[in-house]
Amino acid sequence: MNKINPACKDVDLAAACELLKAGDNWLILTHQYPDGDTLGSAYALGKALQLLGKKVRVVCSDVIPGKYAYITEAAKWDDFTPSHYCAVDVADPRLLGEELEAYAMLVELCVDHHASNTYYAENLLYKDYAATAMLVYEIIKELGVELTPAIAEALYTGMATDTGCFRYSNTDALCHRMAADMLDIGIRSDYINRVMFDIKSRRRMELERMALAAIHFEWDGRCAVMPLTVDMIKNSGALENDMEGLASIPREIEGVWVGATLREIDDNRFKISMRTGSKANACDICTLLGGGGHAAAAGCTVTGELQDVLARVLDAVKTAVPQIEAGDGDEYPV
Amino acid sequence: MNKINPACKDVDLAAACELLKAGDNWLILTHQYPDGDTLGSAYALGKALQLLGKKVRVVCSDVIPGKYAYITEAAKWDDFTPSHYCAVDVADPRLLGEELEAYAMLVELCVDHHASNTYYAENLLYKDYAATAMLVYEIIKELGVELTPAIAEALYTGMATDTGCFRYSNTDALCHRMAADMLDIGIRSDYINRVMFDIKSRRRMELERMALAAIHFEWDGRCAVMPLTVDMIKNSGALENDMEGLASIPREIEGVWVGATLREIDDNRFKISMRTGSKANACDICTLLGGGGHAAAAGCTVTGELQDVLARVLDAVKTAVPQIEAGDGDEYPV
Repeated sequence: MNKINPACKDVDLAAACELLKAGDNWLILTHQYPDGDTLGSAYALGKALQLLGKKVRVVCSDVIPGKYAYITEAAKWDDFTPSHYCAVDVADPRLLGEELEAYAMLVELCVDHHASNTYYAENLLYKDYAATAMLVYEIIKELGVELTPAIAEALYTGMATDTGCFRYSNTDALCHRMAADMLDIGIRSDYINRVMFDIKSRRRMELERMALAAIHFEWDGRCAVMPLTVDMIKNSGALENDMEGLASIPREIEGVWVGATLREIDDNRFKISMRTGSKANACDICTLLGGGGHAAAAGCTVTGELQDVLARVLDAVKTAVPQIEAGDGDEYPV
Repeated sequence: MNKINPACKDVDLAAACELLKAGDNWLILTHQYPDGDTLGSAYALGKALQLLGKKVRVVCSDVIPGKYAYITEAAKWDDFTPSHYCAVDVADPRLLGEELEAYAMLVELCVDHHASNTYYAENLLYKDYAATAMLVYEIIKELGVELTPAIAEALYTGMATDTGCFRYSNTDALCHRMAADMLDIGIRSDYINRVMFDIKSRRRMELERMALAAIHFEWDGRCAVMPLTVDMIKNSGALENDMEGLASIPREIEGVWVGATLREIDDNRFKISMRTGSKANACDICTLLGGGGHAAAAGCTVTGELQDVLARVLDAVKTAVPQIEAGDGDEYPV
């Protein structure tokens, strides 16, 4: 644990709720590049505090993407000079972003689920929870505020987005049961899931077109390498938020042990995202290329012409996973 | 309701369980082109009946795709001459397929959730349930059999696959709560979801490559038409089960009101799948082309060269949805 402020400590649910009840106006801070969990958590908590008669405003360093309009349009924040500050789903004050960095040292309560939390405020931290929204749901119950459809939709958004719609390994029984509680309220879960998970921007689609056409397969398809060059990104018009999750594509192809995405950051400098299943160790491969990470997901940066970078990546894969050349006949290596 | 056999009637959970308990050996029938719900339901029910000391075998007209190996490999069926027959998730005896059609008139109990069920046996039919596996879970509880990890994985597979991993509008609170019960047992839900939802065959990927490159956009991207020609299918090597869900791709592009997939069935004959959101009616469009269907999903068959078929489809869209030309400025038409 890397405590920014040694005086900051863990608080329990009851103490966090006492803190929230004690303040009469709250500025709720979300992290930059906002996602469904920070926004859903903040909007749900904000609306619940308003129902307790407090003045509330939710703020974010970045413009909130239009796809969250069903959350933002359901809220009407108050105009006031804040004296209390709460951060939700913000593991480190640096993640508040430029616009909100001035508030970093004012935060009284941080509600979060990231194991990497840096303790910059009183911390209500449930590391086992798949989403901060699950924890906000506990707060709202403890505060005695009844769920409204708008609150339930915000909470559901956090739970669904941080679990890949209940797909990832962090999804547990509690998360499903909490989602069920939200559905009991009567929320538009199919609309939310369509907007969060199905819809792709035209720019994203164009980039996927080009990226799929450029995938290089090696060793009977057990290795797939997908380049995302500066030209491809430029020609597709893709923005940063159009590129989310692209790195998982190569490993989603049946039979692929090692999937790599080579993203050209600037001229001839490639950020490499390596993804592996049980048959290869992504960290071992990336370590050979000067990077590191986890067994299933690792990264490194390699400089050179695309073809040279590709050759170096394949070389590292072959060194770290020599059995990839011959394979082992398994049909479902996951 | 179209009752094949007027003598066949609805039975309740208790009566269905009495029937199952009364028989000492059971052949459990699944539908052809087996999916996660028919297989998960059949394997879960079969294993539960085995735990009650009965002889059981699960059968299918088709070869079970390798991705279900984690279900099939966990079962060891018995060798016996069946005298009792139960169909699961089979709405109509014709869906049993060629290999099993001889059993159609022997089925004593049908456990199903399809509103289109044709009543060819005593029917335990819960039309409100998102998956037959949910109903099989109720049966297993009623039979007093304790869930094993293998049974829970089979049931979870049915629930997850029939709801698009808890994404579709049929997902309700009960379904989430039942999934939570499965997770309580300790199942490999992340492995299952990866195999069911993330992994694409190389052939599928190749076909997607070509299909994405061929998408035609009209009216500022409010209409997207994706051709799947005989040549594309042949060149990708795609088999029928590689093509599942392809028709939803055009409508998943941001801003698309009308998404159409033109699949060439044989030379110059195109099966058209039309998908729309709230701003257009797919059935209205397809009716103009001699087809029909539902408001959000409809179909028709059009003969001609691809370019002519495309022109006719666009013409029908423009006639049925005249406002698509100018648009209405909305950013999230879903």
